[in-house]
Amino acid sequence: MRILYHHPLNVLSRVVRITLAEKGIPFEPVIERPWERRDAFLRMTPAAEVPVLVEEDGAVIVGGWALIEYLEEAYPDNTQLLPRDVVHRAEVRRLADWFLLKFDREVTENLVGEKLMKRLSGQGHPFAPAIRAGLANIHYHLDYIAFLSERRPWLAGPTFTLADIAAAAALSCVDYIDNVPWDKNPEAKDWYARIKSRPSFRAILADNITGCPPPRHYADLDF
Amino acid sequence: MRILYHHPLNVLSRVVRITLAEKGIPFEPVIERPWERRDAFLRMTPAAEVPVLVEEDGAVIVGGWALIEYLEEAYPDNTQLLPRDVVHRAEVRRLADWFLLKFDREVTENLVGEKLMKRLSGQGHPFAPAIRAGLANIHYHLDYIAFLSERRPWLAGPTFTLADIAAAAALSCVDYIDNVPWDKNPEAKDWYARIKSRPSFRAILADNITGCPPPRHYADLDF
Repeated sequence: MRILYHHPLNVLSRVVRITLAEKGIPFEPVIERPWERRDAFLRMTPAAEVPVLVEEDGAVIVGGWALIEYLEEAYPDNTQLLPRDVVHRAEVRRLADWFLLKFDREVTENLVGEKLMKRLSGQGHPFAPAIRAGLANIHYHLDYIAFLSERRPWLAGPTFTLADIAAAAALSCVDYIDNVPWDKNPEAKDWYARIKSRPSFRAILADNITGCPPPRHYADLDF
Repeated sequence: MRILYHHPLNVLSRVVRITLAEKGIPFEPVIERPWERRDAFLRMTPAAEVPVLVEEDGAVIVGGWALIEYLEEAYPDNTQLLPRDVVHRAEVRRLADWFLLKFDREVTENLVGEKLMKRLSGQGHPFAPAIRAGLANIHYHLDYIAFLSERRPWLAGPTFTLADIAAAAALSCVDYIDNVPWDKNPEAKDWYARIKSRPSFRAILADNITGCPPPRHYADLDF
């Protein structure tokens, strides 16, 4: 069986889990704690980062960008999450990049990184100014989602794409620690509610880390 | 004419300039200082980041990942910088990701960011502990280049790919401020010497920022 080494609160891992589910590609998820630097894991990925996919023939695919593009290319007969037109594909990738890099740097690292990942990986105490920055930054990202979803059925255009998956994966990690102000942004909340109801999101909503459970609304489709 | 908005010391801009040159796609380079937040630039890219490509038909392609993949897809008859096999393509993207994200975070931001970009963009003084971290981190990245180039003609395998472009673009920015210890790593130096001699690298070696000239060896093919 194909194996995905992932961590429940790693955004890129969530992107790949949702993508595999949308494409209907079966896999066995295995939780990896990269900070433990397990020998067998380091032999697969010198960067020591999740996600890592091991195919049934032994091929090892490492890294978020590589995995996202690989799944589109290696399974052309399954659901495609990038549109056909080259300029439209670039728009999807621009938005995926926004949520996987910019949102990560400005929000996720400051909130999930400081409040939860530092504790899980034993890297010290939360840094209050970073948390304040994260709480301030998230508003304009939600506004951007609202701006886009007022103009388009999905974030990058008429169809559900990797842009929606990237944004939802990123927000779901912050929602796990109850730091998304959904009530202040009903348009962004409506878009996220549509994502939550997709079957590909079920495993994400079932995530539950021992000792750090999510808030009650996290898995609620009517939140 | 196709226009590329770029900054000489932005790694992703360098990747796109080299890629366009390798593919033989003509373009007019226009230097953009993203921190000035020019209105016309912000209308093209809400993230306010270089590089941005404006095609002759007006299509605007924004962001590193989007642009790299776009140039492969939109110009299929020009030189391809990703191999054909899907697993091999993933290896190229894994290494590109390494040098565009990991190296950037661990080395480029700490050295070029602290020493030069802060000054250019008027963002205060260099932070000495960050510079020390960057100077310490660069060694294992050079060792990794040496490790790869001892086993393969180019970083990702038998052919010159985006992995080489990403690594060379990243190192060239650090070399601009004379912080690459080439003499301690002859294998990495040999690989970089082969890159420097490529016609696609000429414009990179000719970069010269007013008030911040590069060291003499920067443009020297026999350094």
